[in-house]
Order: sequence, then C-alpha cells, then structure tokens
Amino acid sequence: MTLNLPRGIVICEVGPRDGLQNESVQLSVADKVALIDMAIAAGARRIEIGSFVSVKAVPSMADTDEVALRLSRREGVEYRVLVANLAGLKRSEAAGIDKVKLTVSASETHALKNLGRTPAKVMQDFAECVAFARAHNMAVAGAISTAFGCPYEGQVALEKVRSLIESFLALDVTELSLSDTAGVANPRQVYDYCTTLQAEYPAVQWTLHFHDTRGLGLANVLAGMLAGVVHYDAAFAGLGGCPFAPGATGNIATEDLVHMAEALQVETGFDLTKLLVLGRRVQELVGRITDSALLRVERRDETQ
Amino acid sequence: MTLNLPRGIVICEVGPRDGLQNESVQLSVADKVALIDMAIAAGARRIEIGSFVSVKAVPSMADTDEVALRLSRREGVEYRVLVANLAGLKRSEAAGIDKVKLTVSASETHALKNLGRTPAKVMQDFAECVAFARAHNMAVAGAISTAFGCPYEGQVALEKVRSLIESFLALDVTELSLSDTAGVANPRQVYDYCTTLQAEYPAVQWTLHFHDTRGLGLANVLAGMLAGVVHYDAAFAGLGGCPFAPGATGNIATEDLVHMAEALQVETGFDLTKLLVLGRRVQELVGRITDSALLRVERRDETQ
Repeated sequence: MTLNLPRGIVICEVGPRDGLQNESVQLSVADKVALIDMAIAAGARRIEIGSFVSVKAVPSMADTDEVALRLSRREGVEYRVLVANLAGLKRSEAAGIDKVKLTVSASETHALKNLGRTPAKVMQDFAECVAFARAHNMAVAGAISTAFGCPYEGQVALEKVRSLIESFLALDVTELSLSDTAGVANPRQVYDYCTTLQAEYPAVQWTLHFHDTRGLGLANVLAGMLAGVVHYDAAFAGLGGCPFAPGATGNIATEDLVHMAEALQVETGFDLTKLLVLGRRVQELVGRITDSALLRVERRDETQ
Repeated sequence: MTLNLPRGIVICEVGPRDGLQNESVQLSVADKVALIDMAIAAGARRIEIGSFVSVKAVPSMADTDEVALRLSRREGVEYRVLVANLAGLKRSEAAGIDKVKLTVSASETHALKNLGRTPAKVMQDFAECVAFARAHNMAVAGAISTAFGCPYEGQVALEKVRSLIESFLALDVTELSLSDTAGVANPRQVYDYCTTLQAEYPAVQWTLHFHDTRGLGLANVLAGMLAGVVHYDAAFAGLGGCPFAPGATGNIATEDLVHMAEALQVETGFDLTKLLVLGRRVQELVGRITDSALLRVERRDETQ
C-alpha cells in the first residue's frame, strides 16, 4: 500500500511578503528584487512580491511599488501582491501587477485588528476592488486568514469560512487560499476541511497557507496532499508571521517543503540546491537564524 | 471524510538515553533521576533511562547503573535500557532493569562504526543476550537502527531490514523498533514500510523512532499512524542524536508529539502542561535552546 499523493504541487513563494513584512531589519529595494530573482531562478513560478496595505501598519511593505517597478518580469511567472482595499488595487494597477490577493479574516476580532472592519464589511468593500481589478486586467484571488483558528478567538466555526467562500464566489473569485495565520491547524482538521470544502465548492481552486508555529506545518501539508490539494504557499528560509497574530511565526520554509515533496516523489519544479543558496542569503540579510530545518542541517554539517 | 487514525498511541520517553547521550554537558545522577521522575509524573509509562554500552564510546551513559539503582520504581512503569552485548545484559540484571532493547544497525558501515561488528555478527551474538535476559526475567525488545537510510551508505535496502527482523523473530523477540537514526525517512517511505512489514510479520509489535533532522519527524509519525502503528519514541525538549550518525540530531520532542496527538484527538495519557515544565527544565540543565516547537512558542509568547 502507498499513500495517495498528487503527482505534483505548485508552490507560491510568499517570502518577499509574508516573510519580510515581520522582520525588524528593513531590506533595500535592490535586495528584495535580488531575492525575488533568486527565487524565480530556483523555480518559483508564482511569487508574492509584497503588499499594498497601510504603510503605517506595515512599513516594511511601503516600497512594494518600487520593488514591482524595478523587477525585470519574466515570462510564465505570476507576480502577485496582497491587498485589502481599493487604494491597494490602484497601487497594484500602477505597478503592473498580474494578480491581486484580496485578504479577509474569518475571525471578527482578527479582522477588526488587522483591517479595522468586520469580515462582512471587508467582503462588501471587495466588490469594487474586484470590479477595478477586472477593468484593469488584473487577476483576482481571495485569501481567508485565521481559517483554522484565531489567536484571539480560538476556534473559528467552519460556517464563518463558508460564508466568506460564498461571498467570494458571488464576486466570481474562484481561486481561494485557506490561511492558518496563527499556526494552530492540525492534520485532521486540514484533511476534514479540505475534503469537505472541495466537495461543497468544486469550482474553487484551493491554496493552503501554513505557519510552522507548533511544528505541524509539513504534517499539515501532507494532510492537504492526501486530500488532493495541490497549491501551497511557503517562504524562503522559513521567514514569516503576521503582525496582527501574536505568537504566530514562520511560514513553512520553501526549501523544507520542496525537500519533503522530492522525498515523496511529488514534483515541484524547484531546484533544491538553489533554494538553499537563497535561504542562506535570506538569513544573511535578515541577520538571524530562521526556522528552516534544511538550513539547520547544513550549518551543523559545516561545523562538524 | 476524515483521516483514519488510531484512538491512542503509546510514547516511550527516550530523552534520558537518546537525548542526553549526545549532550556536551554531563548531568549528575540526581538530575537524571529527577528528569525521569518528572517524565513519569507527566504521564510516561515507558522510559528508556540510559544504556549499558561501551563507557569509552558513550561516556555520558556511564552512570546508567547508578541512575537505575537510585530511581524509586513506580508500579506500571516500564524502565528500559539500550544494550548491545552480553556485558550490557549483565549490568542490566544487576541494576534491576525491566526490559532491555537490543540494538543492531541495518547498515554495515553504521554497524561497524557503532558496534565494531557486522549486523550479522551482532545478531549472532544476541542469541546469548536473549538467553541471559530470559534467564533473569528481563523482557527483550529489538531495535533496527538506520532502518530508513544510513548517513554513510545512503539508501538501505528493505531486504536488509527484513533479514534482521527474521533474525529477531528466530530469537522470539517480537517487539521491534524501526529507527530513523539519520533523520532521512519520509512519510511515503514510512507508510510503505509499515504497511508492508505489518502484513509480512503480523506477530511483531512495531515501534517507530524518528529524528526531526529535516523537519519531517511529525509528518512521519502521521504517516505511521495512518499505517496503524501505535508505538513511538520521543525525547523531552527534542534532545537527541546518535554519536555515530553525522548530522543526525533531535528526536521528535515529546511535547510536540503529545500536542499533535491531542490536536488529532489521539490519546497519549500525557499531561502537556507538565511536559512543558519538564522541557524547560531540560533546557536549563543542558544549557541550550533545543529543537522543540512548543518550547519555542512559549519563549516567544513570554517575550511579547
């Protein structure tokens, strides 16, 4: 008997956004562009280069416009940003972005702290965002944060997630991400949610976004793959965290995810050697040892 | 749909042996005894308190005799040691040990470096060890290290593992551990091996022993549980490593495993709060931050 896993998965590199947004070190635009280029050279075909959100709330992303304009775009690569309102959409259009990811939280408390509006109000405001994006030839994806639990509220009822899914579908947004913002998801829950929601909403293309806060990031991906999900977010060197989710940290590391996938004979299109070079460079730039199992093994091997 | 997981798992705490054997700090007998008592108070009903192996090769375990004699034994707890030859058996008997774990490596190179003998010779020598154990009312378990791969040889053919299983069964040893000494196992391999070997050797009670070297420890446990295996080794605070396996480090942390199991609604009989107190005490005693996701979350929460 063997585990029933997909033949391949698609990884979106979110390090430049979810990774760097939380670092105390502010990288230069040139360094950000260089990391994005390295990620693409290592195999990334979807990359979240930053966000167009409140500059005051997330100052590390204030230069996303400039990053976008300085990049030399490569054919076949999707350059994506996270946005939360119409102002973000306008900046996206000016920066020539391919795809915007509209983010809403399933938890009221998290939504109020993060975006200053209830989830219902956020979704209502997304109507004009989607219209603007379509009028300017930008693709639209949706992301539901705290989908598996909230740092403030604890459990988040699946009903709240369903309600947001339906609101997105009403706007004809069918590419949706379920984000474990607080790093509280577990493999049973992931498998249950994915099998249930895939059956209920067959038109949706699902992405899973995990943080490794409690060491379950890769086990959660395994559960997602067993449920047939093929899109995952990951961040170089395992950077990450949400400024509005206490205790949350570390997206799953792209290199750890690619290593697991290779071991499982699941194709990713990434070059692991290049990812490790990228991961080391990220650690140099942020000036700290990040949560990456493969980079940890490398360091240990070098000191022996 | 839901994942098909066992109702409960049994965790053997191997921190006092596989954990402490590799630390540069030598703990006192009193500290070792105190940690063992804390582990039992936290729920451990199987505990590997040390090893009776070459004192020269593994000096940190030289005081296992004394640790065993100083412990106040508790009813219902199995006190186990790792042994490799008849000298170890004699020390076990003198120390009043319940169960000995006879360890052999599936890899020739690892066996030669670790025990100075080929796997076949080790198994041959085990005959008198088993006879001695039985004559002195000690239970016997077997452990096959590098079962999923070797730090020197790379892949280890399943045929070599089978050969050792059959040698153990010929000695009527039916409790067997498959150890991922080098931290190279992956969930697909774990699931394949477990389903295959369980079908081929239905009389065996299997234990899985994983290191989290490449971040796959908990994903491997998930795969083992999906295959129906219910016995796992883990070490407090995620201590661990093998002196003869370069780059290997960190057993899966008991607290991380118990946390995952609780999230999955799989019973363990452990008290997570007590395990966290134990893990912090271990980190104090060894004087370093070990690889434990839950202890990392706690530290971060405290500094916020």
